[in-house]
Amino acid sequence: MAITVVGSVAFDSIETPAGRRERCLGGAATYFSLAASYFTDVRVIAVVGEDFGRRQEAVFQAHGIDTQGIEHAAGKSFFWEGSYLGNLNEAKTHVTDLNVFAAFEPKIPEAYRDSEFLFLANIDPVLQRRVRDEMPGVKLVAGDTMNYWINDHKPALLEVLKGLDILLINDTETRTLAGNSNLVQAARAVMAMGPSSLVVKHGEYGATLFHSGEASRTFKAPALPLEEVVDPTGAGDSFAGGFFGYLASQPELTPAAYRRAMFYGSVMGSFACERFGTERTQNLTREEIDQRFNLFRELTHLD
Amino acid sequence: MAITVVGSVAFDSIETPAGRRERCLGGAATYFSLAASYFTDVRVIAVVGEDFGRRQEAVFQAHGIDTQGIEHAAGKSFFWEGSYLGNLNEAKTHVTDLNVFAAFEPKIPEAYRDSEFLFLANIDPVLQRRVRDEMPGVKLVAGDTMNYWINDHKPALLEVLKGLDILLINDTETRTLAGNSNLVQAARAVMAMGPSSLVVKHGEYGATLFHSGEASRTFKAPALPLEEVVDPTGAGDSFAGGFFGYLASQPELTPAAYRRAMFYGSVMGSFACERFGTERTQNLTREEIDQRFNLFRELTHLD
Repeated sequence: MAITVVGSVAFDSIETPAGRRERCLGGAATYFSLAASYFTDVRVIAVVGEDFGRRQEAVFQAHGIDTQGIEHAAGKSFFWEGSYLGNLNEAKTHVTDLNVFAAFEPKIPEAYRDSEFLFLANIDPVLQRRVRDEMPGVKLVAGDTMNYWINDHKPALLEVLKGLDILLINDTETRTLAGNSNLVQAARAVMAMGPSSLVVKHGEYGATLFHSGEASRTFKAPALPLEEVVDPTGAGDSFAGGFFGYLASQPELTPAAYRRAMFYGSVMGSFACERFGTERTQNLTREEIDQRFNLFRELTHLD
Repeated sequence: MAITVVGSVAFDSIETPAGRRERCLGGAATYFSLAASYFTDVRVIAVVGEDFGRRQEAVFQAHGIDTQGIEHAAGKSFFWEGSYLGNLNEAKTHVTDLNVFAAFEPKIPEAYRDSEFLFLANIDPVLQRRVRDEMPGVKLVAGDTMNYWINDHKPALLEVLKGLDILLINDTETRTLAGNSNLVQAARAVMAMGPSSLVVKHGEYGATLFHSGEASRTFKAPALPLEEVVDPTGAGDSFAGGFFGYLASQPELTPAAYRRAMFYGSVMGSFACERFGTERTQNLTREEIDQRFNLFRELTHLD
C-alpha cells in the first residue's frame, strides 16, 4: 500500500572522519522515501528550489517514487552543513539555510489522497498537523520530530501526537518529551500523549519498540556493528523508511510484522551509514536487503 | 564445573535516586559469585577485614560458595562510597578506602586447584597475572579490568590479556584500550592482544560478544528495559557471573552455548539493578532466572 511522506528535500555538505562531500542530495523525506521504496510505493510532498534539477529528480524516479508533490519554488533548496568529527553519534551543525523551506506550505496532490500510510517527517508540527488533517482516510500515521520542536513548540507538537499511531524518536527526545529519565516510564508517558506505538532509536545500539498497554510486546532490534561508519546522516530517516515501508507492504499489521519492520528499519539504517549521503541507499537490491535482514537474525537469535 | 574467582569483597555505601544504603555487602567477586552460583560451583579468593563477620559469610554459604580462599586480615575491608544521582550509567565515587585490600596477596587453596574455570575480576593486573600463572590447568579464563589499569598500568595489563580466553569490559574501556573509536575495529585490536573472545558491555543497551577471526559469530544480547533502576552497582559483575557461570555449567562450549551465556549475563545484570546491592541477586530462584531468560527471547526474537 502506498505511503505519502511529507518532509524536507535538501542539499547537505557533510564532513566525517571518512572525508567530506559538498551538496549531497539529502533531507529527511529523501532518505525516508529511498529506504521505503524497496518495500512499497512512495509519494513525496516537499519543496525545492531552482538548484534541484533533473539529476536530483532522477534519483527519485529511479526508485519509482512519485514526485508530483515536490513543489518547485523560486530560490534555493534547504541547505544543511554539518560535521561528525568528534562524535559519530551527534552532528555538529555549521549552517542551516532554510531557503525555500521557510515558506513551505504542503500541498497534497489529488493522486496522493488514496494513500493508506502517511509519514510526517521532522518539520514544523503545525505543518505536520495540517497534512494529517487533510488525509483523514489514512490507515496508519507515523511521524518523527526533534528536540527543537519538543522544547520550543510543544503545544503544536502535542496536537500532532494526538493524531499519530506511531512516533519514531531517539532516546534523548523521548526523555525530554516526557520529562523523565527512565526510558520505560518516559515511553509510557509519550504514548499517553497519543501514539499507541513508540519506536525509540538508540543510534549505534539499535532501537526499541514499545506498545501502549502491552509491555509484553516490547521489542528490541540491534544496530549492525559496522567496521566503518562513513556518514551517519539520514540513518534515522532511513530506519523510519525501512520500518514504515515494510509495514505498508504487509497484508496485516500483526505483532510479528512490527518485529520484522524493526529489523528492516535497522537494516536500512545500517546501509545508510556505509557511504556518504544517500549513495548506498540508492544502489541496493532487495536481495542485499534480505541478506542483511538474515545477518540481523543471526546477530540476535539463540538458535 | 567449578569456577574460581579472584577479586574484591567489600562494603559499599550507595546513593541513587531510589534512596541510600550504608555498607551493603559488595565488591566484584561478591556480585560475580552470587550470580554464578545459580549455575555452578563457585570458589572465592579475596581478602576481608574484621568488619566481615558471620552475617556476610552466611550470604556466600547460603549459595554454596566456597569461602576458604577469603583471607581474614587485621583491619577493615575494602570500602567504597558512591552515588548515581545525575546519571544511572556512571557512578560518582566519593570514597575508596582500600584498607586490607591494599596489601592483598591472593593465595589459592589446594581445594581450588582443580577448578576448570577461572575468573579474574577487576583488580591489579599484577595480581591477576599471578593467579592465572598459578592455575595453569584451567580450561577457560575470563577477566575484567577498568580504565584505571588501562591508562596507568598498561604493560602489566597487556601481560594479563595474553593469558585470557575472554575479556569482559565496557564500551569506553574497549575504545580506550584499543585507542580506536570504532567499536568493531577496537574489538579486533583488543582480541589481537590475547583474548579470543571479547564481551563489550553497553550498560542499558546490553552487550556484544565478538570472536576473533569469526565476525559472523558476533552476537548481541539486549538489556531489559527496566521500569526502575534502583541501583546499578554490580550489574557488570553480575553479568559476568551469569555469563561465565552458565558457560561453566555446559558440557560443551559451542557457539550456541556462548549465545545463551550472553542472555544469562543480561538476565543476572537486570536482576542486580532491581534492588540495592546484592539484595535481589541473593534471593532468586532458578525458575525466576529462566522466566527472565524467556522474556529476553521474546524481546529479541522474530518468531
